Amino acid sequence: MAASFTDCANAIRALAMDAVEAANSGHPGMPMGMADVATVLFQRYLKFDPAAPKWADRDRFVLSAGHGSMLLYSALHLTGYAQPTLDDIKRFRQVGSPCAGHPENFEMPGIEATTGPLGQGLAMGVGMAMAERHLNAVFGNDLVDHRTWVIAGDGCLMEGINHEAIGLAGHLRLDRLIVLWDDNKITIDGSVSLSSSEDIPARYQATGWHVVECDGHDELDIVAAIEEALSDDRPSLIRCRTIIGKGAPNKQGTSKVHGSPLGKDEVKLAREALGWTHPAFEIPADIRDTWLAAGKRGKQPHADWAKRLETHPDRIGFESRDDVPVDLLRPFVEQLLANPQKVATRKASEMALEAVNALVPATIGGSADLTGSNNTLTKNLHALTAATYDGRYVYYGIREFGMAAAMNGMALHGGVIPYGGTFLVFSDYMRGGIRLSALQQARVVYVMTHDSIGLGEDGPTHQPIEHLMSLRMIPNLHVYRPCDTVETAECWELALSNTDGPSLMALSRQNLPQLRTEAAENRTARGAYALREAEAPRKVVLIATGSEVEIAVAVRDELEAQGIGADVVSMPCWERFEMQDADYRRDIIPRDALKVSIEAGSTFGWERYTDIEGLRFGVDVFGASGPYLGLYEQYGLTVGAIVPRILAKLNGEQA
Amino acid sequence: MAASFTDCANAIRALAMDAVEAANSGHPGMPMGMADVATVLFQRYLKFDPAAPKWADRDRFVLSAGHGSMLLYSALHLTGYAQPTLDDIKRFRQVGSPCAGHPENFEMPGIEATTGPLGQGLAMGVGMAMAERHLNAVFGNDLVDHRTWVIAGDGCLMEGINHEAIGLAGHLRLDRLIVLWDDNKITIDGSVSLSSSEDIPARYQATGWHVVECDGHDELDIVAAIEEALSDDRPSLIRCRTIIGKGAPNKQGTSKVHGSPLGKDEVKLAREALGWTHPAFEIPADIRDTWLAAGKRGKQPHADWAKRLETHPDRIGFESRDDVPVDLLRPFVEQLLANPQKVATRKASEMALEAVNALVPATIGGSADLTGSNNTLTKNLHALTAATYDGRYVYYGIREFGMAAAMNGMALHGGVIPYGGTFLVFSDYMRGGIRLSALQQARVVYVMTHDSIGLGEDGPTHQPIEHLMSLRMIPNLHVYRPCDTVETAECWELALSNTDGPSLMALSRQNLPQLRTEAAENRTARGAYALREAEAPRKVVLIATGSEVEIAVAVRDELEAQGIGADVVSMPCWERFEMQDADYRRDIIPRDALKVSIEAGSTFGWERYTDIEGLRFGVDVFGASGPYLGLYEQYGLTVGAIVPRILAKLNGEQA
Repeated sequence: MAASFTDCANAIRALAMDAVEAANSGHPGMPMGMADVATVLFQRYLKFDPAAPKWADRDRFVLSAGHGSMLLYSALHLTGYAQPTLDDIKRFRQVGSPCAGHPENFEMPGIEATTGPLGQGLAMGVGMAMAERHLNAVFGNDLVDHRTWVIAGDGCLMEGINHEAIGLAGHLRLDRLIVLWDDNKITIDGSVSLSSSEDIPARYQATGWHVVECDGHDELDIVAAIEEALSDDRPSLIRCRTIIGKGAPNKQGTSKVHGSPLGKDEVKLAREALGWTHPAFEIPADIRDTWLAAGKRGKQPHADWAKRLETHPDRIGFESRDDVPVDLLRPFVEQLLANPQKVATRKASEMALEAVNALVPATIGGSADLTGSNNTLTKNLHALTAATYDGRYVYYGIREFGMAAAMNGMALHGGVIPYGGTFLVFSDYMRGGIRLSALQQARVVYVMTHDSIGLGEDGPTHQPIEHLMSLRMIPNLHVYRPCDTVETAECWELALSNTDGPSLMALSRQNLPQLRTEAAENRTARGAYALREAEAPRKVVLIATGSEVEIAVAVRDELEAQGIGADVVSMPCWERFEMQDADYRRDIIPRDALKVSIEAGSTFGWERYTDIEGLRFGVDVFGASGPYLGLYEQYGLTVGAIVPRILAKLNGEQA
Repeated sequence: MAASFTDCANAIRALAMDAVEAANSGHPGMPMGMADVATVLFQRYLKFDPAAPKWADRDRFVLSAGHGSMLLYSALHLTGYAQPTLDDIKRFRQVGSPCAGHPENFEMPGIEATTGPLGQGLAMGVGMAMAERHLNAVFGNDLVDHRTWVIAGDGCLMEGINHEAIGLAGHLRLDRLIVLWDDNKITIDGSVSLSSSEDIPARYQATGWHVVECDGHDELDIVAAIEEALSDDRPSLIRCRTIIGKGAPNKQGTSKVHGSPLGKDEVKLAREALGWTHPAFEIPADIRDTWLAAGKRGKQPHADWAKRLETHPDRIGFESRDDVPVDLLRPFVEQLLANPQKVATRKASEMALEAVNALVPATIGGSADLTGSNNTLTKNLHALTAATYDGRYVYYGIREFGMAAAMNGMALHGGVIPYGGTFLVFSDYMRGGIRLSALQQARVVYVMTHDSIGLGEDGPTHQPIEHLMSLRMIPNLHVYRPCDTVETAECWELALSNTDGPSLMALSRQNLPQLRTEAAENRTARGAYALREAEAPRKVVLIATGSEVEIAVAVRDELEAQGIGADVVSMPCWERFEMQDADYRRDIIPRDALKVSIEAGSTFGWERYTDIEGLRFGVDVFGASGPYLGLYEQYGLTVGAIVPRILAKLNGEQA
């Protein structure tokens, strides 16, 4: 006999209480409050097959309120996913358990996104829904026909990114997106009314959303709300009125139940209040069976889908569309070598993208309202809009963070490769999203133009200084700064073929000469290489990136003219250089030479390659407004300023 | 005879056209579109005295759409501010001119805030309005009774920070805040409808705002809208329907006029269309006189106010309330020395704040919904709410970026010293605001707790890795990471007495022993100092910060036990250490020793102090979820892991 709805929901509550108690750390309030909603969702609506967690046409579920991770772990476990096991849950929040404090997509296949930084889960849900609609438009209902469900809390709705994300979703009429808002009226500091007086439903409606309410503890009311949401042609917000920590008699409905174990006594009282008489971590067979049966709902739809795919004319295109060969752009690079051009690397990026977008159907480009400046729109793309989901270019609007999170959602969804642009300085606005690209191992490409004081007149608010270096510090993010058209193309090849992490291009506003004269191999792949080798005996190694490689070459010519041998090392990607073996690194950056870095940004960090004794030319203060050549003068980034300091250093003088 | 309203507005249009044309760079569209609104505002409503730009009771005006800087420069010039001169305007966007591409508060006293990064100007306006209402509650109408006006564009309203800022303003019922929205329906990419379908007035109303509309080119309609806004007891959004670039016959109303010079021909046609027959940069006498007369409106109110201040019983308190002596906490530090305590530095910060808040009436604390975790609320504070503006604690809600920008606005307003907390990892969410604190030289204190993997179970989404180092790279930001209660108090002394820049505290979640045993002077003031000196002949210098200083001390004891002399250098503030003279720096970080850094974050950057040959212990990958002592084991940040590598290095082995 099937277990009751209440017992099924209480199984989530019990696992959450018990796991948090065992860990002596965690957040019981949200799982207990949303247990009923989650039970309705996972038992009746969510389309998934625990035996095939990566089934392409599954519904996506994102727990945007990631601190309630035990809700997700419980649901995955109860519906029959291979992970987490009950032992994993017993080791919640312990080193080595896949049941981390917050859900991490790289720990278990059932976790669609890494959440915890508030608001981003919902915003990634928007990206997933965009990817679904796009692929649906390309491949049709037979292959792509699923929904994205998000559970979000008050924090997710208060964060600024919420505004960006729902604005995009409303504009694109993403009706396959349903957000279940855990309206428990509690934040960490206490009542929501301490900090907010907003009419959230009215705000969502003003932003193009359908809104419906329900009692989040009443099965049939939840069902009715979801049914209404399913029938609307806008994205839906379902306001689930809940009691945080429901079941804990003394703590429910208060912030006390949010982020701490209930404590032994309260757990005991909660068990009594819920009528849950079973020992810790024990799920009675009838309840387990009912949950497992719910988990099997997706088996047949999955089998039907697999059959449709097998005979589908687009099968190969569907399965291989985001495969990118590492030598994708070799013919294009040959053309570049044949016709050297002096263009900004942002323009070089556009040129590469013309080739990329023609060759790779999976790319979806976009910009946060700087299309013409970021050079992200190529001739062969048209806009992805509510009327044309098959388009491959997104006008993200002035929503940098929302763009980053949407791209993360698209990349996690799969089948598409998102890239998007803004000015490098505004990486500050989207840094939380860039970090999640890296942590989630998502193939997202950030196209960041206007990458230094070289942007000129817009001044210090728009001139990145610390950004390049501080982005290099984000683990698993590849930061590229190419110096000419050839390197730019090489960067794109590498970025697109890096399937388990994001890449970020720092591109110039100003024109740069073509410096590369051969391209037998992708030299950028090694991160750094000798672009010019010393003719006279080598005393100096000049290391530069991007727009400053041109300066380094001119400095070298001046030194060579004086009989001083100097290499020019172009270093478009620090992360890739660090991955090379010690011999190669020592060959490129030798001990027995004066090392000189030239980069129009923070010098902080260059000690790694120049040694303390080396020279570092860069910009360690805020920039200024003026034509860029004047700024390069002002900050000492000219041949005339650099050469004398190198000569002085070689002569043993204090520079 | 007074010049006509239209002529006065056209003076702004002409100056904007001419300056952008001369610079061959800039944004004519916004100043031309909002010239009429600005003329009404500056001639009739804004309370200011160009002869005393720092008059405390002036209205604040923020050009949130900072790219329209020529609007502000024109208004300041025309109303009679000493700066900018006409020559300054002629050198718009040139090196050395105070008329930078975007308005910068440090260039001219009439500029209240540095804007350009979209959305932040409006959000700073919220902070200014908060400061005004607070000081009004403390000092009364006689001394504090002014408004904050903001001009914002579609970009400012689309950015996520808009949601956070207006949510706070609506909740606090900041009726002294009026936002003039330049509703020109154009963004850089084209029509707003490319990327947004939102009903902005409805959204603002849902967030607790009053909304009124006007024809932004109709003087009387603008006046009527402002009058309605003035009479409402909520913050007001005035939707000004405008034509971007109004006056340029072929380009107005399109994105072409947003960010490029009109071009010689179109300028000529615009002059004809506007009936502006005067040569470039020439303002006829009647128009100039009318503007100057408008600028003199504030002279008498200012004089009246000065008279009231002179005889006001709170005069001294009003004028000196944010003076902070650099030895503010010496008596408190003596108490700490007398009673050593093992507490987390976040707790030590709370202890210091108890003393600070009792001594400095100007502080206004707060947290982005992590009050209990950030330890930012002290016993002597009560909440700043719509009903109690005299309160000194702000429940910012889950609005990190909004908090940063509001604090910037408060600091720029003056009379208050804001501090606010969140987790260090969420500095990513507010980085754009932190950078503007630094660029604007604003005294803001960021209280960032849970500053490493030491936070434990919450896992990698919550564990800062690259954050400390990447924040150190922001020019003019002082990043502090104290190791115990004494250093924490010292950091607070320095942060509060640093009047021309922000400070950021990185504070531990975990308890730390009190390591300082004397405090005759504020040793943190030098940035780094020898906390322990070698007893055996010095071979090693251990450099550590915050929670890792305890580990460094234990490593030292182990080395000394083996007869190896080792200093322990505590380095709570890199920026301050860099400001010391070379002798001091060389004394603390000598050449002739193995230098070893220990910090639970990126090792990238520590080469500056350890040399390449030194050892760097830290965390260069994402963290993990688990109890923190286990994580310190996992990442090799223990005495047992560190000592053998030092010994191996001293023995010349490959570590």
